[in-house]
Amino acid sequence: MKDVAREAGVSVGTVSNYINGKKVRPVVAKSIEQAIKKLNYVVNNTARLLKNNCSPFVIFVVPTVWSPYFSELTFWIQKKLNSLGYKMILCISENDYKLEKDYVKMAEEQRAAGIISVSYSNLTTHIRSDIPFVSIEKESTGIFPLVTSDNYSGGSLAAKELQLRNVKRYYFIGTTNQDSVSMIARRSGFMDYCHNNGLMADVLTVASSRKISQFRKDIDKIVKKLLSENNLGDIGVFTHTDEIAIVLLNELRMKGIRVPEDIQIIGFDGWKITEEDSLNISSIRQPVDMIAEYAVKQLDEEIRYSDNFEIRRINLPVSFIPGITTNNDVRR
Amino acid sequence: MKDVAREAGVSVGTVSNYINGKKVRPVVAKSIEQAIKKLNYVVNNTARLLKNNCSPFVIFVVPTVWSPYFSELTFWIQKKLNSLGYKMILCISENDYKLEKDYVKMAEEQRAAGIISVSYSNLTTHIRSDIPFVSIEKESTGIFPLVTSDNYSGGSLAAKELQLRNVKRYYFIGTTNQDSVSMIARRSGFMDYCHNNGLMADVLTVASSRKISQFRKDIDKIVKKLLSENNLGDIGVFTHTDEIAIVLLNELRMKGIRVPEDIQIIGFDGWKITEEDSLNISSIRQPVDMIAEYAVKQLDEEIRYSDNFEIRRINLPVSFIPGITTNNDVRR
Repeated sequence: MKDVAREAGVSVGTVSNYINGKKVRPVVAKSIEQAIKKLNYVVNNTARLLKNNCSPFVIFVVPTVWSPYFSELTFWIQKKLNSLGYKMILCISENDYKLEKDYVKMAEEQRAAGIISVSYSNLTTHIRSDIPFVSIEKESTGIFPLVTSDNYSGGSLAAKELQLRNVKRYYFIGTTNQDSVSMIARRSGFMDYCHNNGLMADVLTVASSRKISQFRKDIDKIVKKLLSENNLGDIGVFTHTDEIAIVLLNELRMKGIRVPEDIQIIGFDGWKITEEDSLNISSIRQPVDMIAEYAVKQLDEEIRYSDNFEIRRINLPVSFIPGITTNNDVRR
Repeated sequence: MKDVAREAGVSVGTVSNYINGKKVRPVVAKSIEQAIKKLNYVVNNTARLLKNNCSPFVIFVVPTVWSPYFSELTFWIQKKLNSLGYKMILCISENDYKLEKDYVKMAEEQRAAGIISVSYSNLTTHIRSDIPFVSIEKESTGIFPLVTSDNYSGGSLAAKELQLRNVKRYYFIGTTNQDSVSMIARRSGFMDYCHNNGLMADVLTVASSRKISQFRKDIDKIVKKLLSENNLGDIGVFTHTDEIAIVLLNELRMKGIRVPEDIQIIGFDGWKITEEDSLNISSIRQPVDMIAEYAVKQLDEEIRYSDNFEIRRINLPVSFIPGITTNNDVRR
């Protein structure tokens, strides 16, 4: 602790205050953090939390863990929470607003340290403003911090990558859900790029219901439309999610249409079905580990400095991952 | 409650005792359960737990959620726990024995209601015998209940399905991990079937390390061996997991070998990457929802009847799911 104090240029007492969660000025906190990092000083975080009568439990509300994006996100959130001494209570909402509210009520009753949530409802209108809380992907009140991918740039990037691959007809496939801010941003980024570069682009939709049979029927209609209106080889499709991309890919293959030769597809998410592997759909990848890291860091700061009134909007960079659904022999 | 009592042929007081978690004889409990089911009587389970000063928290220890089998299992465990009024605390161990022990210690300190664990170590040697505990897949002490798939029959079934598809040379691909009881059972089931039916079968192994580069190198060696020793069209491979099957499939395709025409593959797990979809590898599918249901039911019984000394071994049936890696035009 002495070494940390010397490195940070503060007293040992200040370092001790910082480690035990007492308030120190943000600028001081930052220099201590840097010193800790530089010296590889290991703080026993759970002990720190318990010493200060702070609950180690953080509630993580998520629609499902049975889908690659959410299972990867849950993996990273847990890992990052653990590294700061917190324990995660996993609450699966299945997008049920009532269930989400129950979880928040439980968090209050159990005096949890805080909440991280991925919710597509207006959950944040029910959060007491003194509870440490971080939203991922959507936050509608403007009161709480939000960590999200840069969806708009992701949409532009998808259009640009298809343009590099000689696509002549551009399509965005989204769902009928008009509340999805991430979908609106992805679509706008894609359509704006096409418009600004004089490219012919259209928006198509599939039902947002989770019924796979309806979903497949909609995709089947879209496939017929694509094939009747265009020449094979001209078409490039950007889908709101990898899930849509995979169903589209399967429908096309069943009809004998070749991907990427006849139609190129770029998804969104960059699904990795395990830590080591990838599904290999060409996709705009969300930086899932960074989303988790920023969400947990932001929550930890809220827990430790309850007088921090800065509301952060963190917009993290996405990247293009070439896979089997685009022609990747491209000159830049 | 009166109706339940009448239906079950017991007094209202007994029903109340049952609902409030007091001990009733197992045979009485059963008739009350049946009456509740028949009458669709809804018990407020969380209220019941809290009224009896019983913690609603159940610790679920699992190696990862970032892999289809475990994310599906986590999904179901959470759903089944919720339906009985419990809240799940998710503890990801990454197969780290030390971390697993920490979670058990935490469960004791926090007076959790119980623990469900998927552990490939000897974790159960560290569990106090008075803590409600259920193992999934492996339990080495014989003291605690175990819920598992019928791995041996799964191995036999894989061999039988390959035989139906005119395979002449049979291979099992497992890992070098000699502690995996589920792998040993799958392998024995496969090899015994081949032996008893006069089929030529061999065992091959890949490193059990999680390093994907080593894993791919091992698979590459296996592919060379398969191709040099056999005629294309004769070969059938059963892999210990779907993960191995997918890497094998990719390696074969990169070498221009056709699946299923040249080589047929059956995996194990029956990965579904989301609730609605399937990866379509031909596979022996574990009944993941049933595993979760039995594990949670068993734990709930341990929590409610602490004098229940019956140690159950629950072995659940598996099934064959035809996918893209076998020739499925088969006459039975």
